[in-house]
Amino acid sequence: MSKKLILRDDEMPTSWYNVVPDIPNGLRPPLDPATLQPIAPEKLAAIFPMGLLEQEMSPERNIPIPEEVLEVYKIWRPSPLVRATKLEQALGTRAKIFYKNESVSPVGSHKPNSAVAQAFYNKREGIKRLATETGAGQWGSALAMATCMFGLKCKVYMVRVSYNQKPYRKSIMQTYGAEIVASPSAYTNYGRSVLERNPDSNGSLGIAISEALEDAVTSESTNYALGSVLNHVILHQTIVGQEAKKQMEIAGEYPDVVIGCCGGGSNYAGLAAPFVPDRLEGGKVRFVGVEPASCPTMTAGKLAYDSGDTAGMTPLLYMHTLGHDFMPPGIHAGGLRYHGMAPIVSALIRENIIEPINVHQMECFEAAVLFARTEGIIPAPETSHAIRAAIIEATRDLNEPKTILFNFSGHGLVDMAAYDSYFAGELHNYSLPREEIAESLSHLPKVE
Amino acid sequence: MSKKLILRDDEMPTSWYNVVPDIPNGLRPPLDPATLQPIAPEKLAAIFPMGLLEQEMSPERNIPIPEEVLEVYKIWRPSPLVRATKLEQALGTRAKIFYKNESVSPVGSHKPNSAVAQAFYNKREGIKRLATETGAGQWGSALAMATCMFGLKCKVYMVRVSYNQKPYRKSIMQTYGAEIVASPSAYTNYGRSVLERNPDSNGSLGIAISEALEDAVTSESTNYALGSVLNHVILHQTIVGQEAKKQMEIAGEYPDVVIGCCGGGSNYAGLAAPFVPDRLEGGKVRFVGVEPASCPTMTAGKLAYDSGDTAGMTPLLYMHTLGHDFMPPGIHAGGLRYHGMAPIVSALIRENIIEPINVHQMECFEAAVLFARTEGIIPAPETSHAIRAAIIEATRDLNEPKTILFNFSGHGLVDMAAYDSYFAGELHNYSLPREEIAESLSHLPKVE
Repeated sequence: MSKKLILRDDEMPTSWYNVVPDIPNGLRPPLDPATLQPIAPEKLAAIFPMGLLEQEMSPERNIPIPEEVLEVYKIWRPSPLVRATKLEQALGTRAKIFYKNESVSPVGSHKPNSAVAQAFYNKREGIKRLATETGAGQWGSALAMATCMFGLKCKVYMVRVSYNQKPYRKSIMQTYGAEIVASPSAYTNYGRSVLERNPDSNGSLGIAISEALEDAVTSESTNYALGSVLNHVILHQTIVGQEAKKQMEIAGEYPDVVIGCCGGGSNYAGLAAPFVPDRLEGGKVRFVGVEPASCPTMTAGKLAYDSGDTAGMTPLLYMHTLGHDFMPPGIHAGGLRYHGMAPIVSALIRENIIEPINVHQMECFEAAVLFARTEGIIPAPETSHAIRAAIIEATRDLNEPKTILFNFSGHGLVDMAAYDSYFAGELHNYSLPREEIAESLSHLPKVE
Repeated sequence: MSKKLILRDDEMPTSWYNVVPDIPNGLRPPLDPATLQPIAPEKLAAIFPMGLLEQEMSPERNIPIPEEVLEVYKIWRPSPLVRATKLEQALGTRAKIFYKNESVSPVGSHKPNSAVAQAFYNKREGIKRLATETGAGQWGSALAMATCMFGLKCKVYMVRVSYNQKPYRKSIMQTYGAEIVASPSAYTNYGRSVLERNPDSNGSLGIAISEALEDAVTSESTNYALGSVLNHVILHQTIVGQEAKKQMEIAGEYPDVVIGCCGGGSNYAGLAAPFVPDRLEGGKVRFVGVEPASCPTMTAGKLAYDSGDTAGMTPLLYMHTLGHDFMPPGIHAGGLRYHGMAPIVSALIRENIIEPINVHQMECFEAAVLFARTEGIIPAPETSHAIRAAIIEATRDLNEPKTILFNFSGHGLVDMAAYDSYFAGELHNYSLPREEIAESLSHLPKVE
């Protein structure tokens, strides 16, 4: 079999797959934080276009991808599915390891799959400007790219610690014409209130979301865009799993286990969702979602209603959460430092379909360097979590002929400072005191 | 027609195309700098493996690509051919603009096409270590990747100004396990002699080549590797043009003009060479090679025998040159700051097959930003020269239905400091005094 499996443009899926109607026992609805009742779609229409809201709530399994979105996807999609033969050899395993290479997008990650769709629907409904937040910078870069391709303005609230540590991410967004500010910022009431209490605040994703939301609600012709967690974001990412499934089919392969790293859940659910129906029909495919031990949302959090942001402005989502004021340690995988998890992923964990695991920072960097030196591509720190899990699966029994598929969600070329710290011996593992989690979980909104 | 044209793994070319036997009036042989006579292959065998020397001198048109090299190529190859529809729309041109996207390689440029082959042949002949130089860092990154995949050690002499300005490039090479030092360094006699004269030397590609050569000659089981200029490097890069030709054929297209930026000449010749036989058989395809106005090797240099390095250690090559001690201004397109040009490209200019042009830094950045904001990919500063030339061709007569093909040789994600300087208004054009070129040309070796 060949090293790589590739589809032609005309073999690319032309619809997204909506896993929601297939989830046993379904999803619980988002709640209005004011009334604790299911939120009225009109309320969400203040920040999202109808095209996306319909997707968020849709009972349809297949939703056509608009021609304009396909046209942009085709700049880099379909993406390659590659067999990690040299990694297999280095591990001495009989397992076959495949990775779906989402790092070939213009900004180096899977994020544009949703950014392009979100920009399109907002543009179609006459919106002129989007506000968003970004942590490590992957989502902000993707939305900056997507908005400029559809002629929208874009404002990105970037978590201050990343804003200071990752000047190149900022430059990438500026090249696409976006406006970037460090969050907490003086541009919003919420940002000012945080700065008043703590002028040196490093910021957090939760704070940046609050700021972007306030911007969207208070600015003219401006909507809000989120890079993960929500159903419509995962919907857009299912292009990944649908392609991968087709590619494996062509190669005569089928995964025993499907792996991905989980921050908000979109890259992993995007790869995994299209395989879920097979499992429901009695297939043996396993699903392993990987998170950092320092931010163990799925493995040590609680399945409950919680806010997506720090200020409590978002609808309450029924999800695995560490509490919306949880402050994770400053690990380099910034994209995995989020207190919540997508309701879709959370429900699949509840139904024992996804097995969540957590891994430590050091073993992930070790896996990342091994991958770079065998397969040639330097992984993003987030992606290294998926690689570590793939290695765990491949080496549990070296003689088991197993087929492993993971999402190579992004490259690390813009995150090299993380590798510098690793090689300089400056990194270590974090063991998170259980009391800290218990404390932030005690602040969950009281629902029922 | 689709946005993108892609080949399957099994449609990838399995041999490289050697343009040398097809060049009218041929190439003049490299000379021994000591005797000024054609150099004996044995002398070159001290720094290159026989596999590459045979390619350097080969009269064969087609040279099979070893299976082991194809296997690594397939991590990212075949690369996409994309139609720049949104750029066309922004320009308001009837021209069709296609770009071959070589930025999808693990290090973001075309350089691994040769690095992988060079690592393979050295490994096959028992060499344990390679020494090389790098300017902007693209070649060093590529060779670091390739050597670690074949289990070789790698030492990179990186031009000091880039070493200081581009810490991420250094980190990339370190992640692949290479050893990197700033050149001029204290590790070689030549480096020490430069530092003695000028302890603050910023270095240059010519100096770094001298250092790497000295390392290769004086160290055990060590060969030298060059990332451009030589025939075998261009040979390896012809995978690019062969794929592009096949892709255009499938799309029912054929280029009226083939464009690329020229530093040492390998990315451009790699794309262009496979189209040269068509021109020789009476085809109308034009070839435009683009260089920076600040380092106008092809447009203001001389076709003559000259050294490839500053110390005069390399064989003398018959090429367009600005003189081996020419010091180009510090433009951001570091990969185009070289005094010489590949003998193959030089001969094709001599035969009026390639039309050389030069463009200024500011118009290139303007083109790069337009490309990023329409096509979504941020170009490397070097690549922006090809884009600028494509725009010139597409806008000369907006109503002319013309088909343009250029090599998108690399992305700029690791070069964002250049964009920062551009947006901050810190960049300007350079007009190079003719006397400066005349001065360095007066130091050419006296041959015949």
